[in-house]
Amino acid sequence: MKLQVTQENLNRALSNVARVASSRNALPILSNVLIKTVDNRVCVAATNLNIAITHYIGSKVADPGSITVPARLMQDFVSSLSSGVIDVELEDTKLHIKTESYNSTINGAPADDYPVMPQIQDGVSWKVSSTLLKKALQQVVIAASSDDTRPVLTGVYFHTYEGNLYVVSTDSYRLAERKIIPLKEEVSLLIPATAVQDLLRIMGDSDQPVLVMHDDQQVLFTIGDVELVTRLIDGSYPDYRKLIPASFETSATLPRSDLQNITKVSSLFARESAGSVTLEVSEPEKQVSIRSVASQLGENTAKAAAEATGEGSITLNSRYILDALNVIADANVTVSFNGKLEPCILKSQDKDYLHVIMPLKS
Amino acid sequence: MKLQVTQENLNRALSNVARVASSRNALPILSNVLIKTVDNRVCVAATNLNIAITHYIGSKVADPGSITVPARLMQDFVSSLSSGVIDVELEDTKLHIKTESYNSTINGAPADDYPVMPQIQDGVSWKVSSTLLKKALQQVVIAASSDDTRPVLTGVYFHTYEGNLYVVSTDSYRLAERKIIPLKEEVSLLIPATAVQDLLRIMGDSDQPVLVMHDDQQVLFTIGDVELVTRLIDGSYPDYRKLIPASFETSATLPRSDLQNITKVSSLFARESAGSVTLEVSEPEKQVSIRSVASQLGENTAKAAAEATGEGSITLNSRYILDALNVIADANVTVSFNGKLEPCILKSQDKDYLHVIMPLKS
Repeated sequence: MKLQVTQENLNRALSNVARVASSRNALPILSNVLIKTVDNRVCVAATNLNIAITHYIGSKVADPGSITVPARLMQDFVSSLSSGVIDVELEDTKLHIKTESYNSTINGAPADDYPVMPQIQDGVSWKVSSTLLKKALQQVVIAASSDDTRPVLTGVYFHTYEGNLYVVSTDSYRLAERKIIPLKEEVSLLIPATAVQDLLRIMGDSDQPVLVMHDDQQVLFTIGDVELVTRLIDGSYPDYRKLIPASFETSATLPRSDLQNITKVSSLFARESAGSVTLEVSEPEKQVSIRSVASQLGENTAKAAAEATGEGSITLNSRYILDALNVIADANVTVSFNGKLEPCILKSQDKDYLHVIMPLKS
Repeated sequence: MKLQVTQENLNRALSNVARVASSRNALPILSNVLIKTVDNRVCVAATNLNIAITHYIGSKVADPGSITVPARLMQDFVSSLSSGVIDVELEDTKLHIKTESYNSTINGAPADDYPVMPQIQDGVSWKVSSTLLKKALQQVVIAASSDDTRPVLTGVYFHTYEGNLYVVSTDSYRLAERKIIPLKEEVSLLIPATAVQDLLRIMGDSDQPVLVMHDDQQVLFTIGDVELVTRLIDGSYPDYRKLIPASFETSATLPRSDLQNITKVSSLFARESAGSVTLEVSEPEKQVSIRSVASQLGENTAKAAAEATGEGSITLNSRYILDALNVIADANVTVSFNGKLEPCILKSQDKDYLHVIMPLKS
């Protein structure tokens, strides 16, 4: 293998790909990235056997070939070089990398020893704007569980309902859902939240459309020259729609930053009680107040003016309120609930996003 | 105690003081800050028995008094409040804090239970510009040891030599020294590096002069309304001056950023060898090159153009080179040494700063 690439292209490819390679994997070669020529391009790829990311970059290929090299070293090295042309040449399993100032050799391992990248030969495919998909996934992935005992809850559920594509996550304590676009294809994909995080990373600030192709086992996302394949999670997603109340006794609308501030301050006094705070809505006082009590440290009541309907209080985990307010990017937020035992709903002007928080015992 | 303060003042005082209070201390009350009225001011203070910081702020005092409250909660709470007037009132050991939006109670402990703050009644005193002192301490404190087995090396040594004030630190692998100002007082103070870090923090961007007062046991720094007292380290500082070579066989001057880049890239290949890299100066080739070898991963040679005198090579810890280059803020840097066994010196145009790195066996 002998080729030339620019530092900018190789660096971009490595920063998309290298994070998938993990040195904590039982198979040592999985801490490497695969570099191989494909016609007049170089394919930089890595997999952890669940997720695979491949990035194609333009190259002057003098001799075709392939090798795998330690991902972290390769990425740190290339990102430290100044921009310009890099000469790459393979000699046995030694990858020689030359620039004006640097003359390096990185010891590799044969590409034949690297696991075969998963492929989707054929399946359903559709397109979505990366701007819309990115916003949607950022708003829902926070509600996915990190507890592997219930695998379905560690995923983001892509599905169509009444002709629209939705994404949703829940860890059973909270739920986040967004309607994205009308879609005629029938979709029901449970995608690991970790793969969604990788997808968000490789989408970056791209505004290229995302091509999605899937079969029963896996899904492929293609954004320009980058491909991400992930296994799907097996299992059926909970029928969450029936848990969301249709109408509310108590409701309050206020500036998001006000609710954020009073929740944040109250949460300081909720450290002993695992974040538990009591939110109260009062129509006559036109306010929302949040109360927290720490038997050791003290107590706090914080209030903010709101347009309120009805009266009532509910006890919630302050961290979940703050997480939700962080991803609701709008100016105002509406908090709605039916007494202390039913779920609390957070919405904004943007009716396509919904955040549900289950109450705590107070 | 009943008083009014502004959020800005109280927040600034707490952010200077609270870090000294530690919850890891055996004495629980040391995780509190002391708040007490002194005439028409409020004194906010904390100590860990080695260091004490006191910050005085203006206040409307209706009733004098004192209390201690949990430092972390108090700081997090006050920093979350919006700017404006805060009403503070003490009832038994409960500190009530009120603003327009918040109504909080923080449970305190009596100020009588708090350790007495160390005082310096009389001693030598002198002044130094905080801009000069700050720059000097930032440049030398990085070379102090964090290993408590040789306490003198965990300090920054303030001392006068030939009529000038110097600060110096060494962990025996490297040494950093700066000459600050001419000073007629005789000074020999070994100040814990941790106290120096606190001093740097409270100096912030202040350009007020620093008043230094000391006796045999402790030193007091006063910057405007803030005071820091620390115990001195017992013991005599090594006679380091005789270790610094007066002339050099080999020397090279190059842009600091070039040396930084080639050292950084080379250090990637030096992870297996605890950072060990070999620096070579060549007068005929007018260059500095740095070579690192990782038996497993590969090897790297990086070079940069330099004004060179003599030839030779020396093996150094790349992390120490990078640390030194980080605090030398000038455009060019000169590296000088006498063969592989004697210390290597880094200097810049600014002749008052000196950084010494001991060689590794190569």
